Amino acid sequence: MSAAVTTVDPRSGMSTSTDLHETDPADVAAACSAAAAASRELDAAGRGFRAGLLTTMADALEQRREDVVATADRETALGPDRLNGELTRTAYQLRLFADVLREGSYLEATIDHAGDTPMGPRPDLRRMLVPAGPVAVFGASNFPLAFSVPGGDTAAALAAGCAVVVKAHGSHPLTSALCGEILAGAAADAGAPAGTVAVVFGRGAGEALVGDPHVTAVSFTGGHAGASALKRLIAQRPDPIPFYGELGSVNPLLVTSIAAAERASDIGSGLVGSFTLGGGQFCTKPGLVLVPADAAGDAVIEAVRESLAEVAPPVLLNRGISDSYAKALAGLTRYDPIVGTTPDGQGFAARPAVLVTDRLDDALLDEVFGPLAVVVRYRPDELATLLRRLPGSLVASVHGGSSADAERDAAAAVLRERTGRLLFDGFPTGVAVSWAQHHGGPWPSTDSFHTSVGTTAIRRFLRPMAWQAAPEHVLPEELRDGTVSVPRRVDGALVLPS
Amino acid sequence: MSAAVTTVDPRSGMSTSTDLHETDPADVAAACSAAAAASRELDAAGRGFRAGLLTTMADALEQRREDVVATADRETALGPDRLNGELTRTAYQLRLFADVLREGSYLEATIDHAGDTPMGPRPDLRRMLVPAGPVAVFGASNFPLAFSVPGGDTAAALAAGCAVVVKAHGSHPLTSALCGEILAGAAADAGAPAGTVAVVFGRGAGEALVGDPHVTAVSFTGGHAGASALKRLIAQRPDPIPFYGELGSVNPLLVTSIAAAERASDIGSGLVGSFTLGGGQFCTKPGLVLVPADAAGDAVIEAVRESLAEVAPPVLLNRGISDSYAKALAGLTRYDPIVGTTPDGQGFAARPAVLVTDRLDDALLDEVFGPLAVVVRYRPDELATLLRRLPGSLVASVHGGSSADAERDAAAAVLRERTGRLLFDGFPTGVAVSWAQHHGGPWPSTDSFHTSVGTTAIRRFLRPMAWQAAPEHVLPEELRDGTVSVPRRVDGALVLPS
Repeated sequence: MSAAVTTVDPRSGMSTSTDLHETDPADVAAACSAAAAASRELDAAGRGFRAGLLTTMADALEQRREDVVATADRETALGPDRLNGELTRTAYQLRLFADVLREGSYLEATIDHAGDTPMGPRPDLRRMLVPAGPVAVFGASNFPLAFSVPGGDTAAALAAGCAVVVKAHGSHPLTSALCGEILAGAAADAGAPAGTVAVVFGRGAGEALVGDPHVTAVSFTGGHAGASALKRLIAQRPDPIPFYGELGSVNPLLVTSIAAAERASDIGSGLVGSFTLGGGQFCTKPGLVLVPADAAGDAVIEAVRESLAEVAPPVLLNRGISDSYAKALAGLTRYDPIVGTTPDGQGFAARPAVLVTDRLDDALLDEVFGPLAVVVRYRPDELATLLRRLPGSLVASVHGGSSADAERDAAAAVLRERTGRLLFDGFPTGVAVSWAQHHGGPWPSTDSFHTSVGTTAIRRFLRPMAWQAAPEHVLPEELRDGTVSVPRRVDGALVLPS
Repeated sequence: MSAAVTTVDPRSGMSTSTDLHETDPADVAAACSAAAAASRELDAAGRGFRAGLLTTMADALEQRREDVVATADRETALGPDRLNGELTRTAYQLRLFADVLREGSYLEATIDHAGDTPMGPRPDLRRMLVPAGPVAVFGASNFPLAFSVPGGDTAAALAAGCAVVVKAHGSHPLTSALCGEILAGAAADAGAPAGTVAVVFGRGAGEALVGDPHVTAVSFTGGHAGASALKRLIAQRPDPIPFYGELGSVNPLLVTSIAAAERASDIGSGLVGSFTLGGGQFCTKPGLVLVPADAAGDAVIEAVRESLAEVAPPVLLNRGISDSYAKALAGLTRYDPIVGTTPDGQGFAARPAVLVTDRLDDALLDEVFGPLAVVVRYRPDELATLLRRLPGSLVASVHGGSSADAERDAAAAVLRERTGRLLFDGFPTGVAVSWAQHHGGPWPSTDSFHTSVGTTAIRRFLRPMAWQAAPEHVLPEELRDGTVSVPRRVDGALVLPS
């Protein structure tokens, strides 16, 4: 019998054994084999069927809302408000992918009829995206629902027609098991095959998963150490499957001179709300803040100090994060941080902090997970140079003046090359799930040209396929001549369904 | 002074020194730095400008047609007919990407206006694809134009707004230098920046290129050994840039029992034309042919034998390919091959050959570059098992009956999972450049979910980017409110330009 899985209460630090066991390699292999068979069935069942499946899953999650939120709260200490919101987001995400399926643009269906070209005769060619096959999803610590078992990667993969095997994050095994049970039940209710969604537990199971020959892609939300370990395992496979890592970043936030002069207080208090949200454990936390080295900038810092005093010390997700946070903070004492309320010493509660400096040392360019922000006081003449030193980020924010602001415009041009989302006059911690969202950015924030949030996340689990001179009955329905329900490119021109 | 570059005449095997020199690392770095500056300018100049640039390049290539074809023929021995056709294809490809730019769907422009959602208020979000930055292109041996300096990767990258540094293939340095000169001249004529296209020479230059910090993606057409070496170098970078490898494959071709009975002779002669085309040095060469083990299948083999006798021994591209081909053939003598005409011993001429076997040994599942095909005689009851053993291929072909054919339909279902293009009743060596083309397939044929031929090849060099609550003047033109010239998704609905 493999080792029992333990769950830890972050509020007390107490560890409890569960009825779950680490999944042994043979069971991982069986799950992947079932996922391969299920992927074929999910593909063949078509877009309408999968839209229904996702909707059934969303309904089932909401029906079990109370259980799920209570379980997740015990394991993450994120609190019922946040977790109820996260469950709502998760259900919304599943339903939005059902819309994506019904709409059908994601297929990129394209037909070139046979004809003459300057290169000579062209055969009939028809292309669309097809499911890649089973996907391995690594759940995140910081979003036990929206980026874990029932989360965005699972929704995108199932929408694509790929069965999913999720490696549960060790921070919330009971939540993962419960969500896995709910999704599997919904899959059965919807008539989906048994291997549609599986959950595996334990580090060894994760290693077996990325090495399994049926797995066609790995999606991961977490830190660089975990990502590197998985990528080393992938490099040992004969086939180089894609690794979609959403890895976090410092997410710079610039306050221009005009913005500081116009609304120092609002910016300062908003900033504290943003970098302490969820205990500062958002991958979009604004970790590096640039304010002008003048009276207006100092007023922003003063507003930060005042707001920070009002923040209760958040409870971090697990011992590893708690220890890393303490260590990072200890390494930065020379910056004489502004600190928030000291926690009472129970569990993984942490003291929020803000470092203020006139110099952006390289050591400050690394992400610190937890309720910490670094404020750099800049002189206007050095701003461009500072911005060019910033590493790639998921999101960069600019607070600019209410009308013309040359500093904002110049910064936007530089930051555009260093981020996947460029945000104005707001805070980056919310990541709306929508058609136009992009949650991904240049290295080190991610390692692909893809998003893990929003409808286009589906592209990660699809591969293109062309049919040449195919008999009509061999073609997928969406590529046959005549009226279809999806937008298509026909002989070069985009055609909407009538 | 670095080493002189030599050119080799494949018809004689004679090597000659050229005026070119291997590019030293400092010059590679300078080219990449210029490419980074040029990429910014190409992006800012807009789609219309880049469409004009590509058209100017196409015109310039055609104006120098005679020189280019003569130079390429001396270095590749592919012959003027083939090379004229390849130049036409190359110019067409550049012009097609100009169409892609003018049409603008490739941007995936998406606008979500601010509004309420079940998750709460959503900010204004606008997404589109933006150029990734400088691209390193590794030219192929077998297509000195269409997959080399002025080829599809260059066209796609420039269209995307990415400047290009091409590593010239050692088989055709003078052709590469000439094409580089033509493209650079056209770029200057079109008003593009100096770093738009550069060509570098020598293995060391290639190594420096993939390690250069400005390079954001590597595209490669060639064999697994070269690809693995480059990927090891990429793994040493701090940032994991994508490697788009188009690596070749066995490209199975099935002749069903009914097809063999209906048209053995046509299939046999067509097959010989296809697998010996360009000296059997197409990445789409049908290398593994399955024919029924019956009288009709034997008639296909007989037609192959007859056609092969008519084929002149092709001259292979270089000594490395020639030596590998001879070695591969020597390792397969136990299959008692049908052989074509023996070459006269000059240069890199090679003897075409067909192996016929009743058993698909694993050794026959590897690609042999050159004019060789393996014919496996199958029993109908073992066909499904045989097909499931096939590795991933760029293209798989099925010759089926003129009406109902259960064997064809069953094979299509199995082959679909093992290929990027599924072709019926034809031969795979032609790869039309079009909107619906897909040239890419499961490992080991490529290592990405992308194509290197056709309009969607542009996606490899683009990364998504979202703007949140951005002032209008900061947004790219295609994301501003009002009428634009590109299709967009607005609040979830696809809208064509009026």
